[in-house]
Amino acid sequence: MRHILRLLWPRAQVLTQRNVKRNFHASRVLFCARSTSHVLKTPSDIMDHEIEEMLAPLRVAVKEQGDIVKKLKEDKAPDIDIQKAVSELKHRKKTLEDKELELGAKDNIDRGKMEDLLKQKFFYDQSFSIYGGVNGLYDFGPMGCAVKANILQTWRNFFVLEEQMLEVDCSMLTPEPVLVASGHVERFQDYMVKDLKNGDCYRADHLIEATFEKMLTDKKVDADTKTEIRNLMPLIDGMSKEDMGKTIVKYNMKSPLTNNDLSEPMEFNLMFSTAIGPTGHIKGFLRPETAQGIFVNFKRLLNFNQGKLPFAAAQIGNAFRNEISPRSGLLRVREFTMAEIEHFCDPNQKDHPKFSNVADLDVVLYSACNQMDGKSPQVWKLGEAVKQKLIANETLGYFMGRIQMFMLKCGIDRKKLRFRQHMSNEMAHYACDCWDAECKTTYGWVECVGCADRSCYDLNQHSKATGTKLVAEKKLQEPKEVDVVECTSNKGSLGKVFKKDAKAIGEYLAALSVEDCDRIEKELSTNGESQITVGTQTFTLKSDMVTIKRYTKKVHVEEIVPSVIEPSFGVGRVMYSVFEHNFKIREGDEQRSFLSLPAIIAPYKCSVLPLSNKDSFVPFVQELSKALTFNDISHRVDDSSGSIGKRYARTDAIAIPYGVTIDFDSLNAPHTATLRERDSMKQIRAPLEEIPLIVKALSIGQRTWEDVLNNYPLFEQQEATKEK
Amino acid sequence: MRHILRLLWPRAQVLTQRNVKRNFHASRVLFCARSTSHVLKTPSDIMDHEIEEMLAPLRVAVKEQGDIVKKLKEDKAPDIDIQKAVSELKHRKKTLEDKELELGAKDNIDRGKMEDLLKQKFFYDQSFSIYGGVNGLYDFGPMGCAVKANILQTWRNFFVLEEQMLEVDCSMLTPEPVLVASGHVERFQDYMVKDLKNGDCYRADHLIEATFEKMLTDKKVDADTKTEIRNLMPLIDGMSKEDMGKTIVKYNMKSPLTNNDLSEPMEFNLMFSTAIGPTGHIKGFLRPETAQGIFVNFKRLLNFNQGKLPFAAAQIGNAFRNEISPRSGLLRVREFTMAEIEHFCDPNQKDHPKFSNVADLDVVLYSACNQMDGKSPQVWKLGEAVKQKLIANETLGYFMGRIQMFMLKCGIDRKKLRFRQHMSNEMAHYACDCWDAECKTTYGWVECVGCADRSCYDLNQHSKATGTKLVAEKKLQEPKEVDVVECTSNKGSLGKVFKKDAKAIGEYLAALSVEDCDRIEKELSTNGESQITVGTQTFTLKSDMVTIKRYTKKVHVEEIVPSVIEPSFGVGRVMYSVFEHNFKIREGDEQRSFLSLPAIIAPYKCSVLPLSNKDSFVPFVQELSKALTFNDISHRVDDSSGSIGKRYARTDAIAIPYGVTIDFDSLNAPHTATLRERDSMKQIRAPLEEIPLIVKALSIGQRTWEDVLNNYPLFEQQEATKEK
Repeated sequence: MRHILRLLWPRAQVLTQRNVKRNFHASRVLFCARSTSHVLKTPSDIMDHEIEEMLAPLRVAVKEQGDIVKKLKEDKAPDIDIQKAVSELKHRKKTLEDKELELGAKDNIDRGKMEDLLKQKFFYDQSFSIYGGVNGLYDFGPMGCAVKANILQTWRNFFVLEEQMLEVDCSMLTPEPVLVASGHVERFQDYMVKDLKNGDCYRADHLIEATFEKMLTDKKVDADTKTEIRNLMPLIDGMSKEDMGKTIVKYNMKSPLTNNDLSEPMEFNLMFSTAIGPTGHIKGFLRPETAQGIFVNFKRLLNFNQGKLPFAAAQIGNAFRNEISPRSGLLRVREFTMAEIEHFCDPNQKDHPKFSNVADLDVVLYSACNQMDGKSPQVWKLGEAVKQKLIANETLGYFMGRIQMFMLKCGIDRKKLRFRQHMSNEMAHYACDCWDAECKTTYGWVECVGCADRSCYDLNQHSKATGTKLVAEKKLQEPKEVDVVECTSNKGSLGKVFKKDAKAIGEYLAALSVEDCDRIEKELSTNGESQITVGTQTFTLKSDMVTIKRYTKKVHVEEIVPSVIEPSFGVGRVMYSVFEHNFKIREGDEQRSFLSLPAIIAPYKCSVLPLSNKDSFVPFVQELSKALTFNDISHRVDDSSGSIGKRYARTDAIAIPYGVTIDFDSLNAPHTATLRERDSMKQIRAPLEEIPLIVKALSIGQRTWEDVLNNYPLFEQQEATKEK
Repeated sequence: MRHILRLLWPRAQVLTQRNVKRNFHASRVLFCARSTSHVLKTPSDIMDHEIEEMLAPLRVAVKEQGDIVKKLKEDKAPDIDIQKAVSELKHRKKTLEDKELELGAKDNIDRGKMEDLLKQKFFYDQSFSIYGGVNGLYDFGPMGCAVKANILQTWRNFFVLEEQMLEVDCSMLTPEPVLVASGHVERFQDYMVKDLKNGDCYRADHLIEATFEKMLTDKKVDADTKTEIRNLMPLIDGMSKEDMGKTIVKYNMKSPLTNNDLSEPMEFNLMFSTAIGPTGHIKGFLRPETAQGIFVNFKRLLNFNQGKLPFAAAQIGNAFRNEISPRSGLLRVREFTMAEIEHFCDPNQKDHPKFSNVADLDVVLYSACNQMDGKSPQVWKLGEAVKQKLIANETLGYFMGRIQMFMLKCGIDRKKLRFRQHMSNEMAHYACDCWDAECKTTYGWVECVGCADRSCYDLNQHSKATGTKLVAEKKLQEPKEVDVVECTSNKGSLGKVFKKDAKAIGEYLAALSVEDCDRIEKELSTNGESQITVGTQTFTLKSDMVTIKRYTKKVHVEEIVPSVIEPSFGVGRVMYSVFEHNFKIREGDEQRSFLSLPAIIAPYKCSVLPLSNKDSFVPFVQELSKALTFNDISHRVDDSSGSIGKRYARTDAIAIPYGVTIDFDSLNAPHTATLRERDSMKQIRAPLEEIPLIVKALSIGQRTWEDVLNNYPLFEQQEATKEK
């Protein structure tokens, strides 16, 4: 499974040899052996005994292969062997996970029914469908838009307000150099092949996999070839462009719909490109993530925070990825909303002052070790997981705790939420530790939030690309003597030779690292000249142009490049998971599907239903509606002629948690009305003027429905009879 | 001045002959003569007597030219003469407005100082500036982002919640056919010229104007040429591409920076284009406005509203325009946030049930007639303006009233707000009436909100392009007999000839208009065949394929294409105007600039300032901060070591309306603290535990500062002394 968001590196690029080489470091392997002793308990819901028996052999298979990988690494075996072993490991993991999901499928909702409901009530639907639609683009209708806005508002209160984060709102259009520095221009890509006649495009790995699967069921394919294919299938994930090309040729693969010949595999960058300005010379992209906007503003943000670390910046906004063939509905789209946090801190101080607030939380962790050992996820106390160094540091742990709290608040089922640690081979090479909050859906486990310690990678990259220092100053406990190596330029001779470029060269030289100063000094003394590259141009320096000075200096502060801890939310994925986890069908009535969204997320908090269309009801409805608006309670009046039962069903379908019915008793003093709760369908009767405040308290979580039930008389009319 | 938003048609295209011809209809001209009798009063602030004397001759000049235009229209003079006269009229209007602004400049703020403040406190700043920046792209920092979010939340409550609008959230990526139908592909463009050597681009009209202005001050240019130029200048606005080309050649105009030769003027479409999907075949654009997303979802929205008219849909989101040379800071940018409302209603019922709520509002109207007559804007009661048909209908008037209320709530200065009616020659040809809410800034009058009656133009266009009916059903008072003309297709013969296209052709035929049925019937009987175009393909029908049926039928409903009333907000422009209208400098201290934003819009509602850094203050600060967070009050603790005066200045600069100071008295029971109001700098002392609720009530407008002053003892320590 690929990871979204920062998260967003396509699978094809994750398994490059370099990453595998860099990341499968011994420390994690050693660490695995220790960590197993700290299991607290296993989540009983995942670990049904009978199921576990069926999974046992698959777990063993994973463990065997995991051990092989470890061994190869310890023996420093050739990369190609390790790569093959890792691919097989991933394959076995996938088989295990598929089986687990299959065995757990009885819990699954009927996705078709849910999608019918979401479409019919216009939560969301395909964009531009009167024009035939565009794959991977969705429009949110009134209900979806309200749910999304509520999730974002909750996010803002829960993270930005609570932690006093610095929220920014940056441009989506991004000039190319920014995304060259971030690595997206080079690496944000998938491999694709084209139908040579009609130009249809396919993701190369998907096509190879699909063709192999078809061949395995084809009687005309001989047994030897089938064995060969079976051996190759686990390797598809790790195939280079060349391997894919050879495989396509060897097995004579064709375009699936037309049977036409296919092109060689080619890199396809997933960013949407455009030209900024009229000349066509400024190449730009639609941002593939919101994070870069924060990094390029680091200096301003640090300044806003009066130069102090740590601080966190946050951004909610849209990002774009030009998927080759989008599928899985809201889970894999071309335009999506992200909510990202970049927490900047001293690389040597990753503790968190509020960690104690979350230390006692139970979280389900699916560690890299457990994944390699074929084990299932385990429940940990967050504090213990950090103490045992399973989670790299307190700040990362703190955010994981907060992420879980947020997800539950939004209505995610805690039994369908886990944190899966990235294994070294899938982690971006700069990340120290990365955990995805995954939600279980009918599509399997879906990565909804990434939480990564990105070290100082991004700031360093932008600093290198621009020659701008992106550092914070840290006051030293006591001043210290430091050796300074400095390259000063002779402005006169630089200017004479390089004219208008002299200024940029001077700035470049002033910001040189010690290593670069050393190199230039050495080259000048050896060859009498040294080459430097400033921006895209290369210049040759002569000895008279620069002086390398070395001296010691007493300093009171040191410059540090902050580390970044990044929680990154895919809002559409969270939303989709919330829908699945809250889709219900009324017992005994298959037609009455509804969404039991928490009030805080529900599109409307309350419905107002007059039992009759008589004129005498109108003033009561209007008065109540006005009072609800005054209290900022979004609500919907349904005065259509349907039976009250039908109207309840309709309001349930759009997840309205509370319904006020104005009935004939309401007309008489003292005026009262009934208040119904969606999930239990229970009703109470309360004075009309108290109802807005009751609903307000319920919908912001200041009061529970149980409390209301205890304080007002139950309205006993049978819902079953009444709702027919 | 060009108009933004729907508003967004570039000037170059507005004055095409066709528009001039269609729109300068006699009715408005006749109407002018009548309307002058309904002036209620003139806004005294605009109409200073002394200034008025200086403007008088300019007003006369406009009036003279306005009369000439009217006369030419009445006489049905040649288009070219009318066009020239209109250009001269616009020129005179501009001279008048420039003079008015110049004479009113004493009220202007120091824009440089304000921009310093906004930059330094990171309200907003240029995007990607460590990479050299990109013109026309801005990032909002924590303060700007919060102001923007608050404006949008206020907008949502004020419009969407209050009117129960259907809010949607649609894709920004938009496939080409949608924008062909809307007219943007053809008409959303400016003319530009290129420097033939370095490729620099200039807007053709700007370049011609600038060159002319330079020539007029050039001693080497002879008097005759100068006269010629003076005669030409008013015509620049109305020049065709060819006229511009000829002008550039005739006066030997060169590229301004390099003096290189220039290209011919060329059309430059202002939309950012990109390719959707990997094939490169699906051409797409970044939407130039959010409105189209609503129109293409009309059917779903109508369905959601249970088929009933009227209803309004709303959308907040980003839109993009690839300006040739962006300038004027936030006012002319390449990426911007819009908030648009599309109110769909029966074209014959444009009254509004809540109009009485706004009928008594005073609004400053700058009618098309007043503009033509050289008169100044006038104050009207909204009800009177609608009654007199100065404003086309109640719904348009209702929204104008609501727009004004919203703008004032956001902090717009009512003396710097007016509604300017589009003159017929600048109105899109489908609009019935259009008023821009304009704010006066140091850049002149800026269009911030457009409010247009767009009739049924958009729905018709999308309906034509897709063959999808975009209509609502209206119940007839009593059933009526109608003549039906229907084209039924013979599926067999269609299928035989057109194969896979037969289905689309069948659907196309079923949706034909009466006129098209008539045409096809005629052609078939005359030629035995008839051609139709479905999508991009043309097909030839034969007589055996279709039958044209005619009959009468009794109908109970009629289908109507709804009219659309569209209030369209440029959020960045509103924000910028709010900044200008609230930028202040403390009397007697030029260094202390601040923003007196209303609390509802201010980025933080409250500051918390401990008078000392002593440990004993810490629990009070923490307790207060926690209580504020619990009450959802965004606040900032400033415990830096600066003097209290400096810290007040700092919190004023970021517009924090209320400040709580924990002083030495706070430490003793009963614990109290001081509460300071930003604009008056007055302070009261109140019990610490009451303070969060006081601030809450103040910041949501439930309580006024005067009321607080009356209920708590004034804290008398002189601010002047204290704040040093």
